Amino acid sequence: MHRVKWTCIGALLALSSARAAELPPRPTVADVVKGSKPADWRALDPVNTLYMEVPGGRVVIELAPSFAPKHAANIRLLARENYFDGLAVIRAQENYVVQWGDADEKTPRPFKTAKATLPAEFTIPASSAPAFVRLPDGDVYAPEVGHANGFPVARDPKTGLAWLTHCYGMVGVGRDTAADSGGGSSLYVVIGHAPRHLDRNITVVGRVVAGMSLLTTLPRGTGPLGFYEQPSQHVPIATFRVAADVPLEQRSRLEVMRTDGATYQAVLDAQRKRGGPWTKYAVGKVDLCNAQIPVRAVP
Amino acid sequence: MHRVKWTCIGALLALSSARAAELPPRPTVADVVKGSKPADWRALDPVNTLYMEVPGGRVVIELAPSFAPKHAANIRLLARENYFDGLAVIRAQENYVVQWGDADEKTPRPFKTAKATLPAEFTIPASSAPAFVRLPDGDVYAPEVGHANGFPVARDPKTGLAWLTHCYGMVGVGRDTAADSGGGSSLYVVIGHAPRHLDRNITVVGRVVAGMSLLTTLPRGTGPLGFYEQPSQHVPIATFRVAADVPLEQRSRLEVMRTDGATYQAVLDAQRKRGGPWTKYAVGKVDLCNAQIPVRAVP
Repeated sequence: MHRVKWTCIGALLALSSARAAELPPRPTVADVVKGSKPADWRALDPVNTLYMEVPGGRVVIELAPSFAPKHAANIRLLARENYFDGLAVIRAQENYVVQWGDADEKTPRPFKTAKATLPAEFTIPASSAPAFVRLPDGDVYAPEVGHANGFPVARDPKTGLAWLTHCYGMVGVGRDTAADSGGGSSLYVVIGHAPRHLDRNITVVGRVVAGMSLLTTLPRGTGPLGFYEQPSQHVPIATFRVAADVPLEQRSRLEVMRTDGATYQAVLDAQRKRGGPWTKYAVGKVDLCNAQIPVRAVP
Repeated sequence: MHRVKWTCIGALLALSSARAAELPPRPTVADVVKGSKPADWRALDPVNTLYMEVPGGRVVIELAPSFAPKHAANIRLLARENYFDGLAVIRAQENYVVQWGDADEKTPRPFKTAKATLPAEFTIPASSAPAFVRLPDGDVYAPEVGHANGFPVARDPKTGLAWLTHCYGMVGVGRDTAADSGGGSSLYVVIGHAPRHLDRNITVVGRVVAGMSLLTTLPRGTGPLGFYEQPSQHVPIATFRVAADVPLEQRSRLEVMRTDGATYQAVLDAQRKRGGPWTKYAVGKVDLCNAQIPVRAVP
């Protein structure tokens, strides 16, 4: 944790306390990104990208249709039928989630051709997880973890199942008590320490790749579970669109680092083995939900 | 993740989809708290409690003098010498930290008897960790983890060392390059997924036990590392006091659950083995930084 910009003081102190052996310099994530090649990146597929316009700007969500095909298709349909436009963020729970959808119990927004509910898609056969690369660092919650096509994933060799994990920024489908009572009309994003106990209890549909702070800085709701207690507290969603339906010049041109190549392995290594001069101890491990997945503007 | 309050729809759907075997009901953390006894709790020690008054209210920090005695004493002294009063939150980095201190490089606030810097207190002998109770669920970053007197802790039997871990809400001491370039005049709190790579690189001094959302909802800084770029963006600290110095009637009367008793084990179990009807899959594990440490108003 760097102190402000007291570089002079810092330099002086560094000279005066060179007792401890300094760790060798190591490439940082920024260094790896800088040295990457175009083939290390994939542009977001506009059909699997959502733009949610809220006060302050745009939240960009990448859908994960390999893990939740029915829900991804239904959310796309909800967007295209303008289901979310004019609805709102209705919940912000500290160190947990921000959620959006329809808060109106009396006259809920009607569905057009999109479904209100769908069968749960909590897990998929592990063999269907696209381009899975295992993270060998271990995990508290699952026998195996890693990345599949830019998403954090867990799997269990015993059951042969894989699932998206509730890391910071992951987007899931709100539901009622029944496993199949969600359909994508109520969505939430993880804003705190990964609530991994939700894994396999929820259909996870994607990840926020830009605009997280538009949601994480929202006032926390004071009702149970962080729901806002007054409609006046709701944070309006102006529009919720599939990127493919947005004129080219209005799209966010982003790309995500491929997680199945050597460059991403270098990103992971940069996080495991940080070098000097600031770092005094390099732990040599990275937890699944701390493993950054770089996103950048298309150069 | 519960959908809003569509209880009727929820109930109907629950009836129609009772295919999956329902998990037996299990006590929740709230249930365990409700059933706890006075002896399961300890009041905050006013000498080890800090009140930081920021716009919107009070942040309450519990110091951990067992882990960082020199820094705890120095921070207390800084508070008593009004060091922080009128300084500001100067950094808010998404999914990382919020930091406060003196941003003025030209005319930095002078120190009185408090020290500007101190020797690092990154680790302590494991034998000194008060009332350590191991969490058997495993950890990615350390050989052993658990709780000591209400704080999340890691330790390594090989080195015989223990240290406070960078979980959400933990407070650390900003420093420059040198290990001993911090002293407590620049502090930060973890606001995202636990950045455990910082463990053993920083003197960790305590934990925010109330008021986190006053810091987590602050606008993110747009400068490098999330520092605010304009002084006008700084979030003022009105006062920063040791609770013992605050009139009794103005104190926050809080107590923290003891982490060395059977009731806290029940809290951990409630998080590992969640029951029906909402939960469909109980993972049976809890990660150190997901293990809630209950705080409540003194009844």
